[in-house]
Amino acid sequence: MASKITPRATDYSQWYIDIVLEAQLADYSPVKGCMVIRPRGYALWEKMRDILDRKFKETGHSNAYFPLLIPESFMKKEAEHVEGFAPECAVVTIGGNEPLEEPYVIRPTSETIIWSMYKKWIQSYRDLPILINQWANVLRWEKRTRLFLRTTEFLWQEGHTAHETKEEALEEALKMLMVYKSFVEEYMAVPVITGLKTQSEKFAGAVNTYTIEAMMQDGKALQAGTSHDLGQNFAKAFDVTYQTREGKLEHVWATSWGMTTRLIGALVMVHSDDKGLVLPPKLAPTELAIVPIYKNENKAAVLEFARQVRDDLKDRFAIDLYDDDQSSPGFKFAQTELLGVPLRLEIGQKEIEKGELVLARRDTGAKTGVPKTALADTVKSQLEEIQNNLFHRALAFRKEHTREVKDYETLLALMNGDGGFADAGWCGDAACEKKIKADTKASIRVLPLGREDGRHATCVVCGKKAHSDAIIARAY
Amino acid sequence: MASKITPRATDYSQWYIDIVLEAQLADYSPVKGCMVIRPRGYALWEKMRDILDRKFKETGHSNAYFPLLIPESFMKKEAEHVEGFAPECAVVTIGGNEPLEEPYVIRPTSETIIWSMYKKWIQSYRDLPILINQWANVLRWEKRTRLFLRTTEFLWQEGHTAHETKEEALEEALKMLMVYKSFVEEYMAVPVITGLKTQSEKFAGAVNTYTIEAMMQDGKALQAGTSHDLGQNFAKAFDVTYQTREGKLEHVWATSWGMTTRLIGALVMVHSDDKGLVLPPKLAPTELAIVPIYKNENKAAVLEFARQVRDDLKDRFAIDLYDDDQSSPGFKFAQTELLGVPLRLEIGQKEIEKGELVLARRDTGAKTGVPKTALADTVKSQLEEIQNNLFHRALAFRKEHTREVKDYETLLALMNGDGGFADAGWCGDAACEKKIKADTKASIRVLPLGREDGRHATCVVCGKKAHSDAIIARAY
Repeated sequence: MASKITPRATDYSQWYIDIVLEAQLADYSPVKGCMVIRPRGYALWEKMRDILDRKFKETGHSNAYFPLLIPESFMKKEAEHVEGFAPECAVVTIGGNEPLEEPYVIRPTSETIIWSMYKKWIQSYRDLPILINQWANVLRWEKRTRLFLRTTEFLWQEGHTAHETKEEALEEALKMLMVYKSFVEEYMAVPVITGLKTQSEKFAGAVNTYTIEAMMQDGKALQAGTSHDLGQNFAKAFDVTYQTREGKLEHVWATSWGMTTRLIGALVMVHSDDKGLVLPPKLAPTELAIVPIYKNENKAAVLEFARQVRDDLKDRFAIDLYDDDQSSPGFKFAQTELLGVPLRLEIGQKEIEKGELVLARRDTGAKTGVPKTALADTVKSQLEEIQNNLFHRALAFRKEHTREVKDYETLLALMNGDGGFADAGWCGDAACEKKIKADTKASIRVLPLGREDGRHATCVVCGKKAHSDAIIARAY
Repeated sequence: MASKITPRATDYSQWYIDIVLEAQLADYSPVKGCMVIRPRGYALWEKMRDILDRKFKETGHSNAYFPLLIPESFMKKEAEHVEGFAPECAVVTIGGNEPLEEPYVIRPTSETIIWSMYKKWIQSYRDLPILINQWANVLRWEKRTRLFLRTTEFLWQEGHTAHETKEEALEEALKMLMVYKSFVEEYMAVPVITGLKTQSEKFAGAVNTYTIEAMMQDGKALQAGTSHDLGQNFAKAFDVTYQTREGKLEHVWATSWGMTTRLIGALVMVHSDDKGLVLPPKLAPTELAIVPIYKNENKAAVLEFARQVRDDLKDRFAIDLYDDDQSSPGFKFAQTELLGVPLRLEIGQKEIEKGELVLARRDTGAKTGVPKTALADTVKSQLEEIQNNLFHRALAFRKEHTREVKDYETLLALMNGDGGFADAGWCGDAACEKKIKADTKASIRVLPLGREDGRHATCVVCGKKAHSDAIIARAY
């Protein structure tokens, strides 16, 4: 099976598609731009969802569910919002065999329907904050789609919060950005750069959009999660006011933030190799694959030994025992590699006699002989090592493919050539940002946080005084 | 707050709506026929979902996700299916600002889109069985809606399985029916009657539909879950064949089965009372409410004691401590009753001095004095008792409101009068079934399983030989 995967060096884009299809994470569907998330892909999403959900609850949020359909007029209440989303909407015009008086759009995001409810629920400061999250499907009509990374329908979570003050809303937006960062780095083992989007790249309807940006193995950027400071924009559009502690009437302050199934695409693109998936142990549905190697004459003994090992470890690790007769050990090895199982234990007659089993790491391919008595501890420590290694390998890759760029010629050469991240200064002028987009396929992905002093003195485009640092890259 | 609930005796229907709104389980939305599931309602759904999901996985099923949109032509491939669902479809005719060449319907159920994929995935008996479940939203255009019980959009799970043989598919359909029954009885504390739907009440596209039916406090029936033996209907409609172990080509055998957010409505309707929700402990988001009773002079001491009790118990039970100053103990008591918290612990100066705290049961209102040292064990045993009591109370109610009926006059009087379940014989003729519907608002809800011998010799309508027993009732 592994042989069906196009090598990265030949065609990175096809390599990605091959992995997703061969590892059965997803499949194309007969619905334009929509995919089917198959059980192996959905198992990853379930793990990611459960971890994120726990983090949301630990930070005081509750889940709720709002309607899929949004009256078309609602979308138009916030000027920037409708401009941004109207071109991407699917519209329901018929219901119960009759034309609808007012069409509904399928939610591309839920700010408008949610704020129409918040108007009903919020009267006083006592009703605040509202900290609600929704796990849902959304739909955005896309011309060019790619499995997981950009599909017309996708699954996501969308947090929608309402606050008394501007400061509290900003604090929430940044808090959730950090929740995203810690999830992506600690569980997905994907290093990210946190920061601001430019005004032209922000969410339609936000005051500011914060983002976490990751680098894929082809040097392109992928936006892995966004958190929006919505100011009073939606409160004003839906006339949501509250009585303050001082008895005045004021508009509410808001945030929204979201992460989607495209994260599965990022997971594949950052860690995997030409043999197939490479999964970080904390997200791998199977942590350890046990492959028994036997012939007819020793089958019973080897299988019994392998099952005993499985039974010894099964309370501590998620194990898959390859004990079927349908394929050879070599095929099974390839299968564990295709599926990205972090560790593989090889058990044959030789290993049993020697009292030392072979443990193979998916990330490095390294094999170690491990005495049966040390197995549990070694599996545990190797899983931790793999988790760490994947993160640091990806971090090293990003550093290697990030260049500080001082002049426009170098930027052009880089963005029209090898790619990667350019770390440069930007004057803050939309004209300079536009020029980069016109001259390359790259754009400003993020204005990094924590660098308020700035590494760069001048704008890489116009040479004027830099307003902030900027990471420039081509992006998914 | 509790005073806003209309008593059941005055208006059962309004009582139900009042509870759902006052306990903030759900709210009306601006989208016709659609509701918002608020955090308190969604917390119930999350608990139900997690328990069901675990049961599905224990029985070998995996989750996946299929597109929301279904090409209109797919719906037409199975004749009964399109006839049943076409009138309920919402249709998307515009995408990305352009009219679509082929309209899409929003899934009312996913058999057609899923079987179009199964055609791709199934070639040989080695690919079988496929045991997939999906958690999703679906949409059925409804004229008359009622919070949770019947809404245009609802959340559900839909299992879709494919098998080698007719027998295996039937076994699966019955297995999942039993999973549903055990969930509803053991966790929701709602007794159900399992059995077959009549041909006129079955799922559009099924060979047979199995159902679990529960009785509400007004004597009406509510279908709490269905499992369908689909035979080869969808395999034939989508031409899904497989190579058998004997090398022949045959159509695949199928099942589907589903449970929805309407279960939350059933939960409310079966157990609750005029004070508000009554929740079975196994599903209650809060198991124990602690209400401290204090005046200014002893506030610090009482609160400290209450917090100590909370800290002692919090690892074993889900606890909510009502330690705010915004409302009186009386208001807090009413609040715990409105929200259906199974147990309430009342702690005041008197209780602290006496060394005996007051534990109040939500289901019976009974209060017990409990020494602090015995608290954990008493809470545990009372929660178990409440869970049991709710089930047996509901079972006794159903028995009390079920009558064996031998003649049509009695059936008419019952169904046009007090209601409840009529347990009667039926000849199997659709004409007799139709006559019941024409003469009353009732219908045959279920032909009970495990009664193949039959308690009734003759059909309650025509007096001919009974083909099976039947439970007749008005229904939600």
